[in-house]
Amino acid sequence: MEGKIDEFIEENRETYIKWLTEFCKIPSVAAQNRGMEDAVSYLDGLFAEAFSIIPEKVPTAGFPVVYAELEGTSDKILSFYNHYDVQPEDPIELWESPPFEPDIRDGKIFARGVADNKGNLVARIAAIHAIRQMGIELPVDIKFIFEGEEEIGSLNLPAFAKKYADKIYSDGCVWEFGYRDADGALQVSLGVKGMLYVELSVEGANTDLHSAQAAIIESPVWKLVWALNTLKDQEEKITIPGFYDEVESITQLDEEMLSHYRLDEEETLRKLGIDSFLLNLEGTELKRKHIFEPTCNICGIVSGYIGEGTKTVLPSAATAKLDFRLVPGQDPEKVLLQLRKHLNNQGFEDIRIKVTSSERAARTKPDQEIVKAMIVVAEQYSSKKPNIVPNTPGTGPMYELCQALGIPSASFGVGNFESNNHAPNENICVEDYIEGIKMVAALVFEFSRQFEKQGSVNR
Amino acid sequence: MEGKIDEFIEENRETYIKWLTEFCKIPSVAAQNRGMEDAVSYLDGLFAEAFSIIPEKVPTAGFPVVYAELEGTSDKILSFYNHYDVQPEDPIELWESPPFEPDIRDGKIFARGVADNKGNLVARIAAIHAIRQMGIELPVDIKFIFEGEEEIGSLNLPAFAKKYADKIYSDGCVWEFGYRDADGALQVSLGVKGMLYVELSVEGANTDLHSAQAAIIESPVWKLVWALNTLKDQEEKITIPGFYDEVESITQLDEEMLSHYRLDEEETLRKLGIDSFLLNLEGTELKRKHIFEPTCNICGIVSGYIGEGTKTVLPSAATAKLDFRLVPGQDPEKVLLQLRKHLNNQGFEDIRIKVTSSERAARTKPDQEIVKAMIVVAEQYSSKKPNIVPNTPGTGPMYELCQALGIPSASFGVGNFESNNHAPNENICVEDYIEGIKMVAALVFEFSRQFEKQGSVNR
Repeated sequence: MEGKIDEFIEENRETYIKWLTEFCKIPSVAAQNRGMEDAVSYLDGLFAEAFSIIPEKVPTAGFPVVYAELEGTSDKILSFYNHYDVQPEDPIELWESPPFEPDIRDGKIFARGVADNKGNLVARIAAIHAIRQMGIELPVDIKFIFEGEEEIGSLNLPAFAKKYADKIYSDGCVWEFGYRDADGALQVSLGVKGMLYVELSVEGANTDLHSAQAAIIESPVWKLVWALNTLKDQEEKITIPGFYDEVESITQLDEEMLSHYRLDEEETLRKLGIDSFLLNLEGTELKRKHIFEPTCNICGIVSGYIGEGTKTVLPSAATAKLDFRLVPGQDPEKVLLQLRKHLNNQGFEDIRIKVTSSERAARTKPDQEIVKAMIVVAEQYSSKKPNIVPNTPGTGPMYELCQALGIPSASFGVGNFESNNHAPNENICVEDYIEGIKMVAALVFEFSRQFEKQGSVNR
Repeated sequence: MEGKIDEFIEENRETYIKWLTEFCKIPSVAAQNRGMEDAVSYLDGLFAEAFSIIPEKVPTAGFPVVYAELEGTSDKILSFYNHYDVQPEDPIELWESPPFEPDIRDGKIFARGVADNKGNLVARIAAIHAIRQMGIELPVDIKFIFEGEEEIGSLNLPAFAKKYADKIYSDGCVWEFGYRDADGALQVSLGVKGMLYVELSVEGANTDLHSAQAAIIESPVWKLVWALNTLKDQEEKITIPGFYDEVESITQLDEEMLSHYRLDEEETLRKLGIDSFLLNLEGTELKRKHIFEPTCNICGIVSGYIGEGTKTVLPSAATAKLDFRLVPGQDPEKVLLQLRKHLNNQGFEDIRIKVTSSERAARTKPDQEIVKAMIVVAEQYSSKKPNIVPNTPGTGPMYELCQALGIPSASFGVGNFESNNHAPNENICVEDYIEGIKMVAALVFEFSRQFEKQGSVNR
């Protein structure tokens, strides 16, 4: 019977592709408050078409959470966490097709948000749709939790999760993202890094000045450069006192998972057009840094004249956007205090810090039903052994939405190694998308079976 | 008879203001190759109207030099060096009236280029026009040398000056700029700093990446920050080895001029909305740094996401524009080599350096006729003692165009302390402009007299 679902999905592939490409036409860039209402309306229409229901729009201090439940035959609950917002599309000039005009070429769908995260969001709806269209009862309750602020740091999700803890509770949560790695194996990911995203800004004179004045007037951009230089040294060590103090040490189990986790170094370097990784790392050291170490990254910096040619100006202001990816044990609020104290101690009291995102890291243990079910399904649908990623280098509100509420969460999905998330020419493979729908459908049943097995053991 | 010239100028003030405001409507931004031909055409028309001649357009590898001669009654030659290009107008949003729609309000003319340098350029044409309209013969030959690339570093002027050394020779050159200081006294300036303007750029992966990748992929912007940090320390000392080695020491005469040079600290701070100067300097130390010390300034820096809100990206490239203001003795080509060597030694071999401007500093001794004539005229036209600036903190091709050819050069002009050169709301006072025209007319005669005096002494 479940095999029939895959056939149904194949027969309806054009519909499911259309559901996705139509959604990707909406420029739901939360950072710029563009297209957000349109995205919510689109989901209304999609739920109406797929399930004959209109989802709840749960208000937050920002964009609403789109929420829906579907009843199953057991008391177990499987939830899907996704987001309907996308990253800004710039640098626009590097896109080969317009970011909000989905283009299918070379077997791939190109569009901003198609990998992160609309592909997975729609695939999960499509999977449940297929099950129900086949007249099969859902073996577990299903909850859809789609937020609109993931790309701007999920600032309002912690309050939402706290307020609606009962409503969103589940026995396992399928996290938003998921990728195939360079050799085509499906990644099953067990955690996310946390994040502190800050904007540092400095102001000087009340106007830009002729740069001859630089001899006697303070330069905000020099101050910013000097300050940034005190945050991380050239050995990539973050030099804010206390930063590493509460980092949880890597366990034996972590190291074991790390040794199985595969990272295709050669392919990654080739794809990015570079000769080596940071600090010439390779092998286990490289994987450890990627998976388990925090970062301090400059997402953007700007000051003064950035146009063509020369302008001799002493800029009156300078700004940098930084993201710190945090690991289990690190508290973004504490890191913020450490940063403030450090800047003060270094003589940069007048650098303003604006926090735009603050999230803790989260980890799921590999013995949880959701993890085991994902691995079974991944093995079913791929000739390659799934690649268990003990912790992804990316970030999401997994701590607030799951770990803090005791909900185990893991992820797999329709993205791939060259999906260009957050970058120009974001894409997914059409076949990965269709396969991804099938895998979600299979996961629903496998997840239920994991509890049944357990039940029979417990009895 | 000379007194009548001032009357004539007063009577024709509306004409002379119109000459200037029409010129300022042309957005002759050399850096962006906008409106440059229009500016040259406008000068054709202006010379035709003022002198019934069409100036030469002397070709260079870049924009042409507009050149004209008018014959006088002696064998002495007075030249005027000005430029018809202007700085880019951004940040456009800070202008109170559109930069290329000259607006007269509160007794000031606001427009991009009105102070730097179209006000002086037109004032000098107007002065010679007024003398000739009165039927008075010019006591010296006059040469107008108007270049179109001053704001982009006069890259082609050295070759022009070399090729046309005989043609442009004069016994004194009135340099392009000139200002009243905070207490209204007219500045007479005897030199300019040199400049090395460079763009530093770093590239990383072939595309912007999700910032989670920052854990293992090199960041060009971090590299740029670290490299910049090695160029200047927080005490404002430029830390490129050898940078100060050939700086000429300050003479007794320099120190004496410095002690007479007036800088209204309180007014400057008030105007700029800041509490103190760089390093809390004041008095002679401040003036010395302003006038006699080289700088290393960041004119602009950009990398990654600089829009509203957050974007978690590892940028694939980073660029900074730097200007070094140099002092007598420093050779910009040597400084460039020192910079390259220093970056290499610090491990930044892969930072690219693009030079966009390279000029030596120049100085004129205060005993030259052109200087003495300017001081006499400045004293005649102002109740305040003129402010002799031994060296201005700004830059221009004075070395190449004058010092290398043995032409003494000094400057005074129609700008003021709040003219906002290179900044939004650039302006000059209408009365300073009219007064400036009268002073140029008077200078022509006083310059001639200085040589006559000398002649009578010599005989």
